[in-house]
Amino acid sequence: MPDLPLETPVLIGRKRDGEELSGDDLRRLVEGYMSGAVAEEQMSALLMAGVIRGFSDAEAVALTDALVASGDTVDLSRLRGPTVDKHSTGGVGDTTTLVVAPILAAAGLQLAKLSGRGLGHTGGTLDKLESIPGFRVALTPDEMRAQVERIGLAVAAATAELVPADKRLYALRDVTGTVPSRALIAASVMSKKIAGGASHVLLDVKTGDGAFMARREDASALAELCVRIGTARGRRTAALVTDMSQPLGDGIGNAIEVAVAVEVLRGERPGRLDELCRELAAAALVLTGTAAAVDAPAFVDELLGSGRALERFRRFVVAQGGDPAVADRPWEVLPRAPEIVEWRPGPGTVTAVRCRELGELAASLGAGRRRKEDDVDPAVGLEVLARVGDHVSPDVPVARVHARTRADAERALARLPTLVDIGEGQVAPVPLVLERVGLSGVPDLG
Amino acid sequence: MPDLPLETPVLIGRKRDGEELSGDDLRRLVEGYMSGAVAEEQMSALLMAGVIRGFSDAEAVALTDALVASGDTVDLSRLRGPTVDKHSTGGVGDTTTLVVAPILAAAGLQLAKLSGRGLGHTGGTLDKLESIPGFRVALTPDEMRAQVERIGLAVAAATAELVPADKRLYALRDVTGTVPSRALIAASVMSKKIAGGASHVLLDVKTGDGAFMARREDASALAELCVRIGTARGRRTAALVTDMSQPLGDGIGNAIEVAVAVEVLRGERPGRLDELCRELAAAALVLTGTAAAVDAPAFVDELLGSGRALERFRRFVVAQGGDPAVADRPWEVLPRAPEIVEWRPGPGTVTAVRCRELGELAASLGAGRRRKEDDVDPAVGLEVLARVGDHVSPDVPVARVHARTRADAERALARLPTLVDIGEGQVAPVPLVLERVGLSGVPDLG
Repeated sequence: MPDLPLETPVLIGRKRDGEELSGDDLRRLVEGYMSGAVAEEQMSALLMAGVIRGFSDAEAVALTDALVASGDTVDLSRLRGPTVDKHSTGGVGDTTTLVVAPILAAAGLQLAKLSGRGLGHTGGTLDKLESIPGFRVALTPDEMRAQVERIGLAVAAATAELVPADKRLYALRDVTGTVPSRALIAASVMSKKIAGGASHVLLDVKTGDGAFMARREDASALAELCVRIGTARGRRTAALVTDMSQPLGDGIGNAIEVAVAVEVLRGERPGRLDELCRELAAAALVLTGTAAAVDAPAFVDELLGSGRALERFRRFVVAQGGDPAVADRPWEVLPRAPEIVEWRPGPGTVTAVRCRELGELAASLGAGRRRKEDDVDPAVGLEVLARVGDHVSPDVPVARVHARTRADAERALARLPTLVDIGEGQVAPVPLVLERVGLSGVPDLG
Repeated sequence: MPDLPLETPVLIGRKRDGEELSGDDLRRLVEGYMSGAVAEEQMSALLMAGVIRGFSDAEAVALTDALVASGDTVDLSRLRGPTVDKHSTGGVGDTTTLVVAPILAAAGLQLAKLSGRGLGHTGGTLDKLESIPGFRVALTPDEMRAQVERIGLAVAAATAELVPADKRLYALRDVTGTVPSRALIAASVMSKKIAGGASHVLLDVKTGDGAFMARREDASALAELCVRIGTARGRRTAALVTDMSQPLGDGIGNAIEVAVAVEVLRGERPGRLDELCRELAAAALVLTGTAAAVDAPAFVDELLGSGRALERFRRFVVAQGGDPAVADRPWEVLPRAPEIVEWRPGPGTVTAVRCRELGELAASLGAGRRRKEDDVDPAVGLEVLARVGDHVSPDVPVARVHARTRADAERALARLPTLVDIGEGQVAPVPLVLERVGLSGVPDLG
């Protein structure tokens, strides 16, 4: 034990008794954890004490700093102009990056996005992009910077050297019942944004059954804390709190989500994903000072309507080795599942959608992972074509199952009536953008 | 991972959120911990959640059961008549076992006591007994039972097979800030008593600066919980809550404490140790139905005054291989430190004694261990000859230092004025027995 073994129980005891730890204490604890001087069982006890007693804002900032200091950071200072990172806390059918990043690049902003893979009922951007034939996500820092300079955007896999303490702590929290802490979640999110080097950070904090933060007030508090942390560390940071009580986009599954995102970029898939992408893009334009709040929505409309955002997406796919035809005929270029069956339960009104379970159903078809080492099947998943409040007739499908086998398709089809309720009468649609944090200048577009 | 890995975080999360776990849950968690299915970091998180949220009485009983079930238990059912275990939560100069056990054996009771070694500022009965030349503490279960049948008492080292989960959990709690939980402490104490097999359990729960439970109300609550656990498991259990704000006996150090205990048995060392030994013995006589509450003090006086208790001590020493002359001329038989110096700070009144620091000073002379693997020097330590409220003159020593070297002696002598305050005027003595739990029939002897 090189360091700290006698002091560590004392620090844990102070957190246990509800005291605030200093930034120096927290830095040494995280450093000691990474060096082996603080044992796994000591860190889990500290985390549990923090989960129950709470961490102050100052502790959340210090934890973020300690996580950032555990590994490499990306230096984007050679890029001229504002750099943006857009981050979603994760959900079902949440394909906003593939739409928002090209819009913002077309507006002259720069996005060097480090992304992850999906786990559980939520998808990951890397898995989605890799469903495009030829697309590669393993970029070196130099390749990434050069691509951002040339076309304004790049998406690559985060390396193990970026915030390694977060990876270890997340694995520890997962098995020790210490996930639900606002400060720990915020430090995890913001450490990766700060290490990623962008000058501007836009967060999309999800709430509802399909999100990690099921309760609205928890999501709001998390959004506010993330904005305070980012601001404290010199990043212009804002957040939207948005609904994840039903799938965002119509696609749930990797290739299906890419196809749906291309359709949104082409103006061919109106709906909640399209709406939220416009909101997020407008917010980023305002946050970076690219457009005034009053002008931003029209600017976004123009970037989409003119095809400039789609063109930027095409250049992005080419730059990373993918087949650019995906921007024109996505359903032909992307892998297609052999069994595609439709579910037509109408007539009636959609009264409830069980979002998380739809994500889990898609994952069970092969679209997601149960464990980190699992492979995903890029072609399979679901299309969910109606939302709460929609009237559906027997003529149009409410969902499509994309399955590897006939048996899988039938199993999923049998499950769908338990996940989407069809009733009678009028039901109000669910609001999409619930709150804006750090964006007082942006008008409500809803 | 053979078992439980998916369920464990859920159980931890329930304790984190303040729910009560079932006996079955706790049993499986402790079993899983011992089998490796529950990792150290999971157990420490669970313990921290329990320390902060608290455990119910039912959980404390279930934890005790789970600890007992982790190892062997001692079967004393072949012994005729009541068996007694007397246990102290530990303190400074706390040599009651060496006096009380012979008194009770002389009264016809049976004590098969499994004991431990000292750590930190408190001594251990085994270390004290081993300072008697020839004395051995490694008895087999059969040897122990035969000795108890013959002479009524035996003291042996607890084996690693007795409540092994307690040993592992204690080591874990020590480094993870999860020691201060009443239920965990009570389960640790009572699991060893229940596994030890005695039908009657008398606890001496210490409170004050020299005890693990510094605050009186914590010690009372611990005593009450231990009595409830013992009673729930069919043991007649009682407890005294007693003062440990100053050293109990005059000796602090292994051979010195044996000598002082012999002097108490011989009626040559009146004072707080003598007083508490009489209280504990009377309580055990009442608890076992050996004497009525009103008769017990006189019975104890007779057992001591007649020499029957001393004689029983002598037979005990002989039975375990020690030199019986220790019962007659203890200071000649026991190892003596080469440097014995007196401290005579009078005249004045003792106004304060720093008990824990006196224990630590004796340990620093070689009487105690910093780490489990350290050796102890049987000869060294302190005699503390005055207590709060005593008037002291320059003619009589307030303390004696027994040291291995002249330098050690001088260092200790220089420390003593900071550990025992001598002032002026009258100071009330500190009450010794503060509370009786589970002994409503025993009159207050104080």
